[in-house]
Amino acid sequence: MSSGEILQFAPLQSFVSPTFWHKLSEIKLDLDRLNDKPRSIFGYYTNRNAKSCLLEIDYTAFNGDFKAPKFCHKAHGTVYNKNTIEEFKTCDKNTLMREEGLKLIEGFQTDAILDDPSLLARFFILSFADLKSHNYYYWFGFPCPLTSTLNLDKPVGNVSNAIKEKLKKCLDESSLLDNFFVFQAAEGQEKILTLKEFVVSSEKDASMDLDNVYFCFANNSEHQHPTWLMRIFIAFLLHKCKTLLGKPLKFIGLRYDNHMDLSSSLLWQFTQKESCNFDDVEQLKFVGWELNKNQKPQPRMVSMRDSMDPQLLTENSINLNLKLMKWRLLPDLNLDVIAKTKCLLFGAGTLGCAVSRMLLGWGFKHITFIDNGKVGLANPVRQYLYTFEDAVKGDVMKADAAAACMKKINPGTISTGHVMQIPMPGHTVGESLKEQTEKDLNKLNDLVQEHDVMFLLTDSRESRWLPTLLGAVYGKIVINSALGFDSYLVQRHGGTRTTESSANDDNNTQILDNLKCIAGHQLGCYFCNDVTAPGNSLKDRTLDQQCTVTRPGVSNIAASYAVELLVSLLQHPLREMAPAYYATTPSSSGATSSQQTYNKIPEGILGIIPHSIRGMLSSFENILPATQKFVQCIACSEKVLSEYRLHGNAFLFNVFESAKFLEDLTGISDYKELQNEIIDFNDSDMELSDE
Amino acid sequence: MSSGEILQFAPLQSFVSPTFWHKLSEIKLDLDRLNDKPRSIFGYYTNRNAKSCLLEIDYTAFNGDFKAPKFCHKAHGTVYNKNTIEEFKTCDKNTLMREEGLKLIEGFQTDAILDDPSLLARFFILSFADLKSHNYYYWFGFPCPLTSTLNLDKPVGNVSNAIKEKLKKCLDESSLLDNFFVFQAAEGQEKILTLKEFVVSSEKDASMDLDNVYFCFANNSEHQHPTWLMRIFIAFLLHKCKTLLGKPLKFIGLRYDNHMDLSSSLLWQFTQKESCNFDDVEQLKFVGWELNKNQKPQPRMVSMRDSMDPQLLTENSINLNLKLMKWRLLPDLNLDVIAKTKCLLFGAGTLGCAVSRMLLGWGFKHITFIDNGKVGLANPVRQYLYTFEDAVKGDVMKADAAAACMKKINPGTISTGHVMQIPMPGHTVGESLKEQTEKDLNKLNDLVQEHDVMFLLTDSRESRWLPTLLGAVYGKIVINSALGFDSYLVQRHGGTRTTESSANDDNNTQILDNLKCIAGHQLGCYFCNDVTAPGNSLKDRTLDQQCTVTRPGVSNIAASYAVELLVSLLQHPLREMAPAYYATTPSSSGATSSQQTYNKIPEGILGIIPHSIRGMLSSFENILPATQKFVQCIACSEKVLSEYRLHGNAFLFNVFESAKFLEDLTGISDYKELQNEIIDFNDSDMELSDE
Repeated sequence: MSSGEILQFAPLQSFVSPTFWHKLSEIKLDLDRLNDKPRSIFGYYTNRNAKSCLLEIDYTAFNGDFKAPKFCHKAHGTVYNKNTIEEFKTCDKNTLMREEGLKLIEGFQTDAILDDPSLLARFFILSFADLKSHNYYYWFGFPCPLTSTLNLDKPVGNVSNAIKEKLKKCLDESSLLDNFFVFQAAEGQEKILTLKEFVVSSEKDASMDLDNVYFCFANNSEHQHPTWLMRIFIAFLLHKCKTLLGKPLKFIGLRYDNHMDLSSSLLWQFTQKESCNFDDVEQLKFVGWELNKNQKPQPRMVSMRDSMDPQLLTENSINLNLKLMKWRLLPDLNLDVIAKTKCLLFGAGTLGCAVSRMLLGWGFKHITFIDNGKVGLANPVRQYLYTFEDAVKGDVMKADAAAACMKKINPGTISTGHVMQIPMPGHTVGESLKEQTEKDLNKLNDLVQEHDVMFLLTDSRESRWLPTLLGAVYGKIVINSALGFDSYLVQRHGGTRTTESSANDDNNTQILDNLKCIAGHQLGCYFCNDVTAPGNSLKDRTLDQQCTVTRPGVSNIAASYAVELLVSLLQHPLREMAPAYYATTPSSSGATSSQQTYNKIPEGILGIIPHSIRGMLSSFENILPATQKFVQCIACSEKVLSEYRLHGNAFLFNVFESAKFLEDLTGISDYKELQNEIIDFNDSDMELSDE
Repeated sequence: MSSGEILQFAPLQSFVSPTFWHKLSEIKLDLDRLNDKPRSIFGYYTNRNAKSCLLEIDYTAFNGDFKAPKFCHKAHGTVYNKNTIEEFKTCDKNTLMREEGLKLIEGFQTDAILDDPSLLARFFILSFADLKSHNYYYWFGFPCPLTSTLNLDKPVGNVSNAIKEKLKKCLDESSLLDNFFVFQAAEGQEKILTLKEFVVSSEKDASMDLDNVYFCFANNSEHQHPTWLMRIFIAFLLHKCKTLLGKPLKFIGLRYDNHMDLSSSLLWQFTQKESCNFDDVEQLKFVGWELNKNQKPQPRMVSMRDSMDPQLLTENSINLNLKLMKWRLLPDLNLDVIAKTKCLLFGAGTLGCAVSRMLLGWGFKHITFIDNGKVGLANPVRQYLYTFEDAVKGDVMKADAAAACMKKINPGTISTGHVMQIPMPGHTVGESLKEQTEKDLNKLNDLVQEHDVMFLLTDSRESRWLPTLLGAVYGKIVINSALGFDSYLVQRHGGTRTTESSANDDNNTQILDNLKCIAGHQLGCYFCNDVTAPGNSLKDRTLDQQCTVTRPGVSNIAASYAVELLVSLLQHPLREMAPAYYATTPSSSGATSSQQTYNKIPEGILGIIPHSIRGMLSSFENILPATQKFVQCIACSEKVLSEYRLHGNAFLFNVFESAKFLEDLTGISDYKELQNEIIDFNDSDMELSDE
């Protein structure tokens, strides 16, 4: 730019680190949610090897105690993040720019900028974060009051060596790090003045000699055109110091190289003849919308999708769904507990497949499968983790394929499969298998201890015995599901963890008419209702008994309820110790459904938490019975648990040898004799189930 | 075999065509089911280029009018197909062989064998068909009474040319095709005698000259040892003709080559000295269990799995599951109608994925998807047809991926995906899109007509309007499902097919206390309850409204009920015209659940068939309201249907232009004015749903 030319400024170029968008998304989801009030943020720019007049923001933008990185200067911003693309588009841009401009002017009129000159570097962002598609729409504004043009008194040029030396010396001696300051270069009186010091002294001395005064600013432009920030600096100075009007003013745009040399700094000199009055706010106009890359006054869009690790993106997307639930409807929903809960699934058949998919949907991350079967040809149509290809191979183990499929759905899932037969009461272990069984038992024991929740999803009554016992021994949450042809049972086993509240039996009292309650630790297990030890029911099954004979809807519904019941439990402060309420009506035997009564049941944040759900597809109906622990239960009674604690695997082998052992141990053999006719609990409807 | 040597027989070798096992499986599943009574079957063997003494069976074995293939002779068998491997193993083999042997002896004692000599060729199979794993266990028996050994009078040898010529001449002249007969070779009196003719004449002439008599049989053995069947032939002859005892007997084992030459036929001559008396049944012993390939008296097992086309095997396996359901519990279940019903799914999101998997589980074969979306990163955890890999690609269309996945699960599925936006009321179609929309409308029209059932599984109310209209116009079964955060609606639209019964309104009467009924053609559609035309609800949705905000269990349960409701309908003789019963209780507004009342509802073979199922996960409860058609319905009323029939797409474009058009057409604008306060049906709970 030569003498007489109009002084033009290099526009600021926004540069947004992807980390900013991540942080914005996080804040939007976790804090702001539907609130779209503007948020204060910070940016920074540098005059060391500066290029392209950049103003940068990253994830630190939201820090209240933001500090600009080394060699950088702070800028003050605001983000207006809208809730919809329509709001983003229809937002009145002129009004917004004016509002932001007026904030700057407010700084002119108060002492704010004098106290903190970095407030001259202002920006704002109008944005819309499409968190679903990971597209971010944004438009930067760098507000500046519209002022008359200035013409250079001299061509733009380098700062003389003399001045440069003196300036450097003063800067080295001063601790000042402001992006805007004044250099008094009069021989022998060289010093750095803060803006405040300068304004104060100019007020005192209206006829101040400006020959040796240099207005300095950190220049992030590498061109002959100084940074846009100089324009704001000029406006501020002329507003504050009316005495500058009509005098030649010298501005130094400071630029450093790697060796902190100032040689590339430039000097501009001009005289402002028209008075600048920013006090008449009504008359003010502001400019400063950033142009897009095509030099058009339009917003920009960045898709983070391609730049992000797909797995991370996926995690974000999945979390978005879950967080939206929390945000919109369930502010108390604890998603962390879900992400941390480790689930062990006994059975990777129809139920196991559906349960594990549901767990992924809820954001569970740890899913372990135990299964002994291979993927059969008829499996894929009902077992949602397997394909025809798996089945045709003929030797694909379900446990392995299930775990692999978890990762195909969400690579972030921690899932393993264990091919293992679950030893069962009455299924004698031959001598040759004893060693392997011993190993399996120890493995099983370890697995149970490593997990928080056990799902019992196998296809026979007796295969549920050992998991039930282990769940009770180690105080795990146990969710049980069994299928009939068109009926299902979903049940949570009574809690056995030792907690303070378990000593407190107060819950076990009548609450309301027709509504009873059983404390969580007094709820029964799958075997509590039954007074026969499970025998070898797998032998001699005809074809129809070997296969899944259920209406396809049954397993899906049961799996859904099983997972929803678990999530409800996990959200309850007492977890599995949460009491179960149930309706009692005199008109029918056992528990029955009654909307009027259920309406009174105390709810967790997700609703009621029943002990069990028994449903019938033939009537599209559920009933929610609750039953108490049975003191002679062959799986969860203290007698059985202590026997296991005492003798471990040796006890188990006795049981595998003969189920009668359990009946004798718990004394239900006698009980059976006595009450033979009364207790004829027929659970055969629940016996056929998942293969 | 030389003179004096013991006459030994070549054991029969069973050869079972895979087609036999397929047929057996089919019969087991479709006819016999748990019935394990023995079945008569037929086999055959040949003496033309015969090798290895084979006796073959194939799928024709079960034909009542069985005919042996050309050049083959018939054999008579029985299959004892057991229900379990245990029954197969523990079956008393000696008793079975004896029972089968006695059947043979019964033939000796009556005229049965004389009337049909092929009855000498007897066999039976003890089997177990493991239809689940496609393994077939079997053991053939060829019963023969245990008799004393015979020593050859002469070495085994060829038949003399003279005899051979004469025999051939007689055979050519005779039409006899028996596998056992007698050749009278006396010079000038050459003739073929049936067994009956021979026995009759030998009874008349006790001192018959046997020098020129040759006992002939079709010999399927290529060895010097004649076929096992000769042993039975000898036993029969000596039983029938006591005069043969102590006389040298000549047997010709007939064997043909390709040119029907008899040169490889052999002659055995021996004299039976001990009397054979088979009348003392108690004393009889029988032999004839086939040895396995290792020459051990053990059954064989064949796995059809490897030899069958995996796709066919899969079909069989899937059908097995379904047939078992029919066989064991629902003999009236019509699986054909399910396999033939063509389903069109609007939406391949959470609901569409779950519904289509359920359809596969029930044995549906024709599944078509309409969807306009791409697989997003958050989709796979809730949308059960997609993987992380699909999502990461970024441009995979759901409709295409869903159809492809159907085939990965069951290659026999006929599935296509159509990427198409469903035009919606109030969503103006710009001029530039008009042509494409016109195409889409025609395509949609075709698709609806080509299918039997429509599932409405989209994520907005307005996207259901056009499918609802088209379903009503073409008289299709329409199943609608919509999701709330923890609630769901599943509904069948009222039938619009013109049937005889639709003229009959008798159903629409009160049946029982608190139980009302609406005829199938008078049931409402999704829009009948609502008196606002759907507008553009998709615009300006905040983030939470753009995403699926539902508890994961909701979609699974709704999808399950949707498919089960369809299957129940398809099994009802009136199909979608089946009436819906609903409970009315005075105590609460609208329909409510009441077990006592539901118990009285008339059931289809799968249970009750409600109009709609509304469920709440928070209470694990369903209610089953039924509502009538609304005469001013904006989607299914006659006014709307006839307008479409009259003006077709032109009418639709009017509706897309402004939803108000529908309100004016049906007159609900007035209605709304009038009843504004009364009718304030808030379905907002159902509005957010599947994405």
